[in-house]
Amino acid sequence: MPDYRIRPMDHAKFAADRFGKVDLANGATLFLGLNCFEPGQTQRVHSHRGADKFYLILSGKARMAVGREEFEASAGDLVWAPAEVPHGVVEALERTVMLIGMAPPPGS
Amino acid sequence: MPDYRIRPMDHAKFAADRFGKVDLANGATLFLGLNCFEPGQTQRVHSHRGADKFYLILSGKARMAVGREEFEASAGDLVWAPAEVPHGVVEALERTVMLIGMAPPPGS
Repeated sequence: MPDYRIRPMDHAKFAADRFGKVDLANGATLFLGLNCFEPGQTQRVHSHRGADKFYLILSGKARMAVGREEFEASAGDLVWAPAEVPHGVVEALERTVMLIGMAPPPGS
Repeated sequence: MPDYRIRPMDHAKFAADRFGKVDLANGATLFLGLNCFEPGQTQRVHSHRGADKFYLILSGKARMAVGREEFEASAGDLVWAPAEVPHGVVEALERTVMLIGMAPPPGS
Protein backbone atom coordinates (compact mmCIF):
# COMPACT_ATOMS: atom_id res chain seq x y z
CA MET A 1 0.00 0.00 0.00
CA PRO A 2 1.50 3.36 -0.95
CA ASP A 3 2.37 5.67 1.89
CA TYR A 4 0.06 8.57 1.21
CA ARG A 5 -0.02 9.61 4.87
CA ILE A 6 3.41 10.31 6.32
CA ARG A 7 4.24 11.32 9.88
CA PRO A 8 7.40 13.38 9.30
CA MET A 9 8.51 13.58 12.94
CA ASP A 10 8.59 9.76 13.15
CA HIS A 11 11.32 9.78 10.47
CA ALA A 12 13.65 12.38 12.02
CA LYS A 13 17.27 11.22 12.08
CA PHE A 14 20.15 13.07 13.72
CA ALA A 15 23.90 12.60 13.49
CA ALA A 16 26.78 14.04 15.47
CA ASP A 17 29.04 14.87 12.52
CA ARG A 18 26.56 16.70 10.26
CA PHE A 19 22.83 17.39 9.99
CA GLY A 20 20.60 14.44 9.14
CA LYS A 21 18.87 14.15 5.76
CA VAL A 22 15.83 11.94 5.19
CA ASP A 23 13.83 11.31 2.00
CA LEU A 24 10.06 11.33 2.52
CA ALA A 25 8.59 11.45 -0.99
CA ASN A 26 10.30 11.29 -4.36
CA GLY A 27 7.94 12.35 -7.09
CA ALA A 28 8.58 13.08 -10.74
CA THR A 29 8.17 16.83 -10.19
CA LEU A 30 8.53 17.33 -6.41
CA PHE A 31 10.83 16.02 -3.68
CA LEU A 32 10.00 16.15 0.04
CA GLY A 33 12.38 15.32 2.86
CA LEU A 34 13.63 16.25 6.30
CA ASN A 35 16.70 18.16 7.44
CA CYS A 36 17.44 17.42 11.11
CA PHE A 37 19.83 19.62 13.07
CA GLU A 38 21.43 19.23 16.46
CA PRO A 39 21.99 22.58 18.23
CA GLY A 40 24.93 24.38 16.60
CA GLN A 41 24.82 22.42 13.34
CA THR A 42 24.74 24.37 10.08
CA GLN A 43 23.97 24.04 6.39
CA ARG A 44 26.28 26.08 4.19
CA VAL A 45 24.67 28.71 1.98
CA HIS A 46 24.01 27.30 -1.49
CA SER A 47 21.55 27.73 -4.36
CA HIS A 48 19.68 25.57 -6.85
CA ARG A 49 19.54 26.43 -10.53
CA GLY A 50 15.98 26.28 -11.83
CA ALA A 51 14.54 24.77 -8.65
CA ASP A 52 12.34 26.48 -6.06
CA LYS A 53 12.70 25.22 -2.49
CA PHE A 54 11.09 25.69 0.90
CA TYR A 55 11.76 24.81 4.52
CA LEU A 56 8.87 24.38 6.96
CA ILE A 57 10.12 24.31 10.54
CA LEU A 58 8.38 21.41 12.29
CA SER A 59 10.15 21.75 15.65
CA GLY A 60 12.96 23.77 17.17
CA LYS A 61 14.51 27.06 16.09
CA ALA A 62 17.26 28.05 13.67
CA ARG A 63 18.98 31.12 12.25
CA MET A 64 18.40 31.03 8.49
CA ALA A 65 19.88 32.94 5.56
CA VAL A 66 18.04 33.62 2.29
CA GLY A 67 19.31 36.16 -0.24
CA ARG A 68 20.66 39.08 1.77
CA GLU A 69 18.42 38.36 4.74
CA GLU A 70 19.16 36.58 7.99
CA PHE A 71 16.41 35.73 10.45
CA GLU A 72 15.29 33.27 13.09
CA ALA A 73 12.67 30.72 12.15
CA SER A 74 10.84 28.50 14.61
CA ALA A 75 8.14 25.84 14.62
CA GLY A 76 5.39 26.71 12.14
CA ASP A 77 7.47 29.13 10.07
CA LEU A 78 7.88 28.66 6.33
CA VAL A 79 11.11 29.74 4.63
CA TRP A 80 10.90 30.33 0.88
CA ALA A 81 14.04 30.03 -1.27
CA PRO A 82 13.19 30.72 -4.93
CA ALA A 83 15.39 29.25 -7.68
CA GLU A 84 18.89 30.81 -7.83
CA VAL A 85 18.53 32.61 -4.47
CA PRO A 86 21.29 31.53 -2.04
CA HIS A 87 20.02 30.01 1.20
CA GLY A 88 21.23 27.99 4.15
CA VAL A 89 21.09 27.40 7.87
CA VAL A 90 23.46 29.74 9.71
CA GLU A 91 23.00 27.81 12.94
CA ALA A 92 20.43 25.63 14.62
CA LEU A 93 19.63 27.26 17.95
CA GLU A 94 17.83 24.18 19.27
CA ARG A 95 17.38 20.62 18.05
CA THR A 96 15.44 21.43 14.88
CA VAL A 97 13.49 19.38 12.34
CA MET A 98 12.57 20.97 8.99
CA LEU A 99 10.37 19.60 6.25
CA ILE A 100 11.97 20.57 2.96
CA GLY A 101 10.54 20.53 -0.52
CA MET A 102 12.22 21.08 -3.86
CA ALA A 103 10.86 21.19 -7.41
CA PRO A 104 12.07 19.72 -9.64
CA PRO A 105 13.72 17.08 -7.42
CA PRO A 106 17.52 17.16 -6.96
CA GLY A 107 19.36 15.45 -9.79
CA SER A 108 16.40 15.52 -12.18
CA MET B 1 12.07 43.28 0.68
CA PRO B 2 11.08 39.81 -0.48
CA ASP B 3 9.11 37.70 1.97
CA TYR B 4 11.47 34.81 2.54
CA ARG B 5 10.04 34.08 5.98
CA ILE B 6 6.33 33.42 5.97
CA ARG B 7 4.11 32.68 8.99
CA PRO B 8 1.42 30.56 7.35
CA MET B 9 -1.06 30.61 10.24
CA ASP B 10 -1.16 34.42 10.09
CA HIS B 11 -2.59 34.14 6.56
CA ALA B 12 -5.38 31.64 7.24
CA LYS B 13 -8.70 32.74 5.73
CA PHE B 14 -12.04 30.99 6.21
CA ALA B 15 -15.37 31.37 4.47
CA ALA B 16 -18.82 30.05 5.23
CA ASP B 17 -19.71 28.93 1.69
CA ARG B 18 -16.57 26.99 0.77
CA PHE B 19 -13.05 26.34 2.07
CA GLY B 20 -10.61 29.25 1.96
CA LYS B 21 -7.68 29.32 -0.46
CA VAL B 22 -4.62 31.50 0.07
CA ASP B 23 -1.50 31.92 -2.08
CA LEU B 24 1.73 32.01 -0.07
CA ALA B 25 4.50 31.63 -2.68
CA ASN B 26 4.30 31.49 -6.46
CA GLY B 27 7.55 30.24 -7.91
CA ALA B 28 8.41 29.23 -11.45
CA THR B 29 8.50 25.55 -10.48
CA LEU B 30 6.64 25.34 -7.14
CA PHE B 31 3.45 26.82 -5.68
CA LEU B 32 2.70 27.01 -1.94
CA GLY B 33 -0.60 28.01 -0.40
CA LEU B 34 -3.13 27.34 2.32
CA ASN B 35 -6.42 25.47 2.28
CA CYS B 36 -8.57 26.49 5.27
CA PHE B 37 -11.60 24.43 6.26
CA GLU B 38 -14.41 25.05 8.69
CA PRO B 39 -15.68 21.86 10.33
CA GLY B 40 -17.74 19.87 7.82
CA GLN B 41 -16.30 21.57 4.72
CA THR B 42 -14.95 19.37 1.93
CA GLN B 43 -12.76 19.42 -1.15
CA ARG B 44 -14.02 17.16 -3.93
CA VAL B 45 -11.71 14.39 -5.09
CA HIS B 46 -9.68 15.52 -8.11
CA SER B 47 -6.29 14.91 -9.70
CA HIS B 48 -3.53 16.91 -11.39
CA ARG B 49 -1.93 15.75 -14.61
CA GLY B 50 1.86 15.85 -14.37
CA ALA B 51 1.91 17.64 -11.02
CA ASP B 52 2.86 16.18 -7.62
CA LYS B 53 1.11 17.72 -4.62
CA PHE B 54 1.21 17.54 -0.85
CA TYR B 55 -0.85 18.70 2.12
CA LEU B 56 0.81 19.38 5.47
CA ILE B 57 -1.76 19.71 8.23
CA LEU B 58 -0.83 22.77 10.30
CA SER B 59 -3.80 22.65 12.66
CA GLY B 60 -7.01 20.71 13.09
CA LYS B 61 -8.05 17.32 11.73
CA ALA B 62 -9.62 16.09 8.51
CA ARG B 63 -10.68 12.92 6.77
CA MET B 64 -8.64 12.69 3.56
CA ALA B 65 -8.84 10.53 0.43
CA VAL B 66 -5.85 9.62 -1.75
CA GLY B 67 -6.04 6.87 -4.35
CA ARG B 68 -8.13 4.09 -2.83
CA GLU B 69 -7.26 5.08 0.72
CA GLU B 70 -9.21 7.11 3.25
CA PHE B 71 -7.67 8.19 6.52
CA GLU B 72 -7.68 10.89 9.17
CA ALA B 73 -4.84 13.39 9.18
CA SER B 74 -4.13 15.83 11.98
CA ALA B 75 -1.59 18.53 12.86
CA GLY B 76 1.89 17.51 11.77
CA ASP B 77 0.77 14.89 9.24
CA LEU B 78 1.91 15.05 5.63
CA VAL B 79 -0.38 13.80 2.87
CA TRP B 80 1.31 12.92 -0.42
CA ALA B 81 -0.68 12.99 -3.67
CA PRO B 82 1.55 12.04 -6.61
CA ALA B 83 0.66 13.24 -10.11
CA GLU B 84 -2.50 11.63 -11.54
CA VAL B 85 -3.56 10.11 -8.18
CA PRO B 86 -7.05 11.32 -7.17
CA HIS B 87 -7.17 13.11 -3.81
CA GLY B 88 -9.42 15.33 -1.77
CA VAL B 89 -10.78 16.23 1.63
CA VAL B 90 -13.73 14.01 2.54
CA GLU B 91 -14.58 16.20 5.52
CA ALA B 92 -12.86 18.55 7.91
CA LEU B 93 -13.50 17.19 11.41
CA GLU B 94 -12.34 20.39 13.07
CA ARG B 95 -11.38 23.86 11.88
CA THR B 96 -8.33 22.83 9.83
CA VAL B 97 -5.49 24.70 8.12
CA MET B 98 -3.33 22.87 5.57
CA LEU B 99 -0.18 24.06 3.84
CA ILE B 100 -0.34 22.79 0.29
CA GLY B 101 2.38 22.57 -2.32
CA MET B 102 2.17 21.74 -6.01
CA ALA B 103 4.84 21.37 -8.68
CA PRO B 104 4.65 22.63 -11.30
CA PRO B 105 2.30 25.43 -10.17
CA PRO B 106 -1.36 25.31 -11.27
CA GLY B 107 -1.86 26.75 -14.74
CA SER B 108 1.80 26.54 -15.72
